[in-house]
Amino acid sequence: MSEAPFEAAWSALSYHGGNLGAARRLCPEAPEPWIDLSTGVNPHPYPLPAVPLESWARLPEVDHLAALESVAAHRYGAAPAQTIAAPGTQAIIQLLARLRPAARVGILGFSYSGHAHAWRAAGAGVATVEDIAELAAFDVAIIVNPNNPDGRLASPASLVALHQGIAARGGMVVVDEAFMDLDGRGQSLVPALPASSAIVLRSFGKTYGLAGLRLGFAIASPDLAGPLRTALGPWPVSGPAIAIGCGALADDAWLEETRLRLERDARRLDRLLVKCGFEMLGGAALFRLARHADAQALFAHLLRHGILTRPFAALPDRLRFGVPAGAESWRRLESALGRP
Amino acid sequence: MSEAPFEAAWSALSYHGGNLGAARRLCPEAPEPWIDLSTGVNPHPYPLPAVPLESWARLPEVDHLAALESVAAHRYGAAPAQTIAAPGTQAIIQLLARLRPAARVGILGFSYSGHAHAWRAAGAGVATVEDIAELAAFDVAIIVNPNNPDGRLASPASLVALHQGIAARGGMVVVDEAFMDLDGRGQSLVPALPASSAIVLRSFGKTYGLAGLRLGFAIASPDLAGPLRTALGPWPVSGPAIAIGCGALADDAWLEETRLRLERDARRLDRLLVKCGFEMLGGAALFRLARHADAQALFAHLLRHGILTRPFAALPDRLRFGVPAGAESWRRLESALGRP
Repeated sequence: MSEAPFEAAWSALSYHGGNLGAARRLCPEAPEPWIDLSTGVNPHPYPLPAVPLESWARLPEVDHLAALESVAAHRYGAAPAQTIAAPGTQAIIQLLARLRPAARVGILGFSYSGHAHAWRAAGAGVATVEDIAELAAFDVAIIVNPNNPDGRLASPASLVALHQGIAARGGMVVVDEAFMDLDGRGQSLVPALPASSAIVLRSFGKTYGLAGLRLGFAIASPDLAGPLRTALGPWPVSGPAIAIGCGALADDAWLEETRLRLERDARRLDRLLVKCGFEMLGGAALFRLARHADAQALFAHLLRHGILTRPFAALPDRLRFGVPAGAESWRRLESALGRP
Repeated sequence: MSEAPFEAAWSALSYHGGNLGAARRLCPEAPEPWIDLSTGVNPHPYPLPAVPLESWARLPEVDHLAALESVAAHRYGAAPAQTIAAPGTQAIIQLLARLRPAARVGILGFSYSGHAHAWRAAGAGVATVEDIAELAAFDVAIIVNPNNPDGRLASPASLVALHQGIAARGGMVVVDEAFMDLDGRGQSLVPALPASSAIVLRSFGKTYGLAGLRLGFAIASPDLAGPLRTALGPWPVSGPAIAIGCGALADDAWLEETRLRLERDARRLDRLLVKCGFEMLGGAALFRLARHADAQALFAHLLRHGILTRPFAALPDRLRFGVPAGAESWRRLESALGRP
């Protein structure tokens, strides 16, 4: 791997995690199977039930979609009328930027780049701020909570206070709780959802390890819920997503076991990375953010060992590590990082 | 079934096909299983392959999406760069109305209502016209080709001529070829796709009998392809849709067999309906449009026999029949329509 392709790959792999194709092209000699630690997706998928043929064959029925939204509403502590299913929260992020055109969008950073991309594509000016108080000056305020990649958590009270000022000026607050399910601190905005101009995003795919299914939810105040449903149109999610989602979202025992398991694994990963000279900067149950003066070289070193982590073009001394799954993945990561 | 609930049901079931839940509530005493002849979905689903776990678990990779679009492009006779996958063509219909806000939208009618709903929701004024020449006066012209429900077919030459006038004024032409795959007349606009301001929609779910999968494509001129991709965002379709779509779209033999089978079944259905006093008004391989002075009563009669057809609120003397699948469905339809 020479320097020039590495620069290109660092940039390409910094955009989104999960691009094993690009990693393979860069390091065709790396051992298979690749270990993908570049995403924030649970590596322990919810056990797939048998999906009935009619879920694949028929257009999803209105009643079945409503049943899914009802189970999700119960899971998230929301009202069913405020709970809207979509083919992934990314689809909602894309639509919001078109539904509520805004001049100035503020994002509490450093954070997931998908929000900024979608709003810029829709013509908005997007700024990243460091302090939640600075968001009060924008038309749309976006907070990823807990934050990706560092796990920073804003309290519901601080979000409600921020919302009051923005809503009074006709603005909107978007809280992306993609990683809230597995966070034990109970700080979701959903129970305190403001009556207007507020929307919370919840990811099914990340928590349940089924990102390929494309399923996510918005919990939206009534002024946003109606237009969002209308903009998504009929049949927004697939039949298999409805069948699988209805079962998984009602399975409290699996979620609790998974939370404990991932907390344990996250602590184990932190210990491993600290021993290898990383400084841990935070994270959530599904990923850990680490700093190292040689982060770029370590990223390339891990690539050669068939392990893809997540670099950040703007922060070259940081890597985000997903939590490995299974003894062999742990062994290969430990071995590649130079432990016995 | 009394008169008042019937009026409500006629209206509800006129909006979209496939609402077996509403049909069951209306006729709880009807025999099971219900036979759904209310949609334009192929009742013979493409045989489902085994879907690898990673298609469910991982975020779909850029390379895999590109591979699907490449297979689809070959299938439709388009360039891969112009071929855009989406979670159903309805998702594209919804987005187009937001991407290219237009004041005056003309639809060649009587036709599928989803276009008008989406454009009205986005603030456009929508008019239905009877003659393709009248479309030249609009900012956006929409033609379902072959048309649903009557099968009316516009030639590529007539669409190109229409497009020239509209594009010169900065407008756009949308050709919804949801039912073109199974039409033997070879009148797709794709080989003659104009260089700008034109978009063709192709449905995967209807042709392959997998409407629950949510997969459809746009073949768009370059000025529309880029913005549409950007608006759909990353991971627009599911991992299972990519895995299943790649196989099905490359299977020419299955498609040809299916076309012949459905043409045969459509002729059989026409004969049956004519014998029962219907006048046949047209249709496509997946549905037949029939007129009968007692259409409302026959719709209710079939409901009581557990057979759902498609009424039209604005055209109370018409019913659309999907093609039955399997000997038992044919037997029940023939029996309900009063034949031995």
